[in-house]
Amino acid sequence: MADKKIFLGEEFLPTQWYNLNADFPNPMPPPLHPGTGKPPTPEDFAPIFPMNLVEQEMTPDRWVDIPEEVLGVYKIWRPTPLYRADRLEKALDAPVKIYFKNEGVSPPGSHKPNTAVAQAYYNKAFGVKRIMTETGAGQWGSALAFACQIFEIELKVFMVRVSFDQKPYRRIMMETWGAECFPSPTNTTEAGRKILEMNPDSPGSLGIAISEAVELAVKREDTRYALGSVLNHVMLHQSVIGLETKRQLEAIGDYPDVIIGCAGGGSNFAGLAFPFIADKIAGKEIQIIAAEPTSCPTLTRGPYAYDFGDTNQTTPLLPMYTLGHDFIPAPIHAGGLRYHGMAPMVSHCVREKLVEARPYDQMETFEAGITFARSEGFISAPETCHAIASVIEVAKQAKEEGKEKTILFNWSGHGLVDMASYDAYLSNKLQPYSLPDEEIARALKAIEGLPKIA
Amino acid sequence: MADKKIFLGEEFLPTQWYNLNADFPNPMPPPLHPGTGKPPTPEDFAPIFPMNLVEQEMTPDRWVDIPEEVLGVYKIWRPTPLYRADRLEKALDAPVKIYFKNEGVSPPGSHKPNTAVAQAYYNKAFGVKRIMTETGAGQWGSALAFACQIFEIELKVFMVRVSFDQKPYRRIMMETWGAECFPSPTNTTEAGRKILEMNPDSPGSLGIAISEAVELAVKREDTRYALGSVLNHVMLHQSVIGLETKRQLEAIGDYPDVIIGCAGGGSNFAGLAFPFIADKIAGKEIQIIAAEPTSCPTLTRGPYAYDFGDTNQTTPLLPMYTLGHDFIPAPIHAGGLRYHGMAPMVSHCVREKLVEARPYDQMETFEAGITFARSEGFISAPETCHAIASVIEVAKQAKEEGKEKTILFNWSGHGLVDMASYDAYLSNKLQPYSLPDEEIARALKAIEGLPKIA
Repeated sequence: MADKKIFLGEEFLPTQWYNLNADFPNPMPPPLHPGTGKPPTPEDFAPIFPMNLVEQEMTPDRWVDIPEEVLGVYKIWRPTPLYRADRLEKALDAPVKIYFKNEGVSPPGSHKPNTAVAQAYYNKAFGVKRIMTETGAGQWGSALAFACQIFEIELKVFMVRVSFDQKPYRRIMMETWGAECFPSPTNTTEAGRKILEMNPDSPGSLGIAISEAVELAVKREDTRYALGSVLNHVMLHQSVIGLETKRQLEAIGDYPDVIIGCAGGGSNFAGLAFPFIADKIAGKEIQIIAAEPTSCPTLTRGPYAYDFGDTNQTTPLLPMYTLGHDFIPAPIHAGGLRYHGMAPMVSHCVREKLVEARPYDQMETFEAGITFARSEGFISAPETCHAIASVIEVAKQAKEEGKEKTILFNWSGHGLVDMASYDAYLSNKLQPYSLPDEEIARALKAIEGLPKIA
Repeated sequence: MADKKIFLGEEFLPTQWYNLNADFPNPMPPPLHPGTGKPPTPEDFAPIFPMNLVEQEMTPDRWVDIPEEVLGVYKIWRPTPLYRADRLEKALDAPVKIYFKNEGVSPPGSHKPNTAVAQAYYNKAFGVKRIMTETGAGQWGSALAFACQIFEIELKVFMVRVSFDQKPYRRIMMETWGAECFPSPTNTTEAGRKILEMNPDSPGSLGIAISEAVELAVKREDTRYALGSVLNHVMLHQSVIGLETKRQLEAIGDYPDVIIGCAGGGSNFAGLAFPFIADKIAGKEIQIIAAEPTSCPTLTRGPYAYDFGDTNQTTPLLPMYTLGHDFIPAPIHAGGLRYHGMAPMVSHCVREKLVEARPYDQMETFEAGITFARSEGFISAPETCHAIASVIEVAKQAKEEGKEKTILFNWSGHGLVDMASYDAYLSNKLQPYSLPDEEIARALKAIEGLPKIA
């Protein structure tokens, strides 16, 4: 390949999303309604999501058309460039070719708008006037603010208070795109008030913020809730990443031996990997790695079990690798990917050995991020640094074994609004952290008594 | 044009920079050595810049080859996409086509690396081991840190203290790329100590920071100084923007009626406009607008005069529009573009009526930035918002006059590390500000007694 990056024209933008559910050799276990113990019906989801998205959540179809209106917005930043990381290759001095898909070129700077735009569109089409959502550090909230602005939907974002206070930039991004952002817990919801009564200085958590958003969403007929990861329809929308990458690699006649993505809720990993997993199921030999933090090692140390998606137990029970719905990563952890569970589809891939999960310590991930910034130039989101740490590990192993390998990874976002984490690393304020066994045991008490996966 | 954005392959990257000095109908007045009153010789510059850059500063050649090594680094983000701002057009409902060149896709997020990479390369080629520079909010410092990392040159950046304290993100970016960054004034230089003796709490200024950087640069044989705007060789390197844009417009068979850029020191404006000014000199009808802040109205309210490039009077006298080398914009000004003077080449264009300058109030510029973010999606640097305000003004006028117009502007950088300014605007902490006449009169006392332009 002569070129540093491959763009391809807009005519190469996929016009359909890919649904891996159509190709699993063994089907996923269904979610369960916690009350009935049976799979939830579409009606169970109706107060939370618009019915067109509920249908997508449950569809068995292999391909789903991307609406024209969504394609029109995708074209603001898609197709995204596929890069050859030749400078990183040189720095690693290993017998590898490395490609990365640059999802950081979207206006909010990450892969999140791939689903945010689709969700805003479907809500609009269903007549929804107002969306409620939660956000941690703000990557999802800012992506949805961008999308809701375009489709003229009102958006309220419940942002975990500690992030709201310490990381104002993404909050300001949301406001710039016209959304309202509140530090959660608030006193505007029952869930929030309950927490504040117990602890007026609560730093908040993703679980509390979800509860606040869902509580307000189900209250009004014209309002719904939106989630940026975990669910099937989110994985579906993100498949545009991998589909585009396949076309780009095809254009230069290459194909990867190893595919790597970081995994928190699972959406950027799934987005790149799922279209290639279809090939793997069809017999192609590919190694596919999900990189996660040692401080939130859902896939590598959690059981595969039914668990709630949120702390307040308002969601259906999802079949997934989980650390228990009460789990909150230690404050020392600076690398994102803090969700207690993992997308059921990604979990199923790990269970079925289509995907291998590997944990990385935060010291290793930031070191990888610095190596990347000082070779390829771009500053990566702390989440993305997990994927880079994995790429470096695979490259070093290839060197030791003297094997040539072609590695592809998802550069899921830039780190320009996460510089405080780099500062902590560069000024030696971070330290290695691996979640202790007793913490996991304690957290997993939350799922005792829940139904088991058959 | 069917496509939202035009990329073109890397084979379209220009291989030469364009030097407008070769085509001016009337030549620019020369700079003057303040001691001799005569044009400085290359040797006068030798302690400050490497000789290969001094030669570029003075070259009469129309075209200068871009070294292979520089092209290799440019390819990390160049060619940059040319966008059709169809969503902004719709929002403005005016008979205009609007294009913008997206220079925000570079790793540091602005046009600055176009010259930073070239300067780092030439310093390296000349054997320089260490570069000293200054930076205000940090756009230049971070770009040079990125470039010096690639060419393995040590970099020390003197950052205006008030920005160092209030805007840590760009400082961390510099450190991520391996540079050292100091809050200026420091006690490591005579210039800094002098200021600190008078005022231990000095907030610093660009003029002081330049003096510190130059003082340390001339002290050591293996060390030089670098400047991110104003000078001829900077304008030369930035011409890659306009040259690329011409090829992209050619590919879709279009040509602009109006070209707009924001102007502080002048480099992003020159980068886009100069290759088109060559056409204007050859007879083409194009309106070319330099947009500046009403709080630092160098081109619209300063005299055309000889002045120093820095507060401490260490540079040659430059022929330029200036508010006096002591001038510092009021703290209320949040939009960047704070330099007291203007690149001599841009000044000459205004003097020769090749370029028209227009001032914009900060309330108008942030409003324009919000309009852009809510239509095109991207969040603009506060500097870039001046260009957008001008685009909107031109579009409104075209609507009033019922004239169709094609507008091209330079989207010189994103605002993701400048969100604090948006916050100030959105929370009503900003107010209109136009520099009072008496402030200008007071500032211009600094150039009394300097030679006049013949």
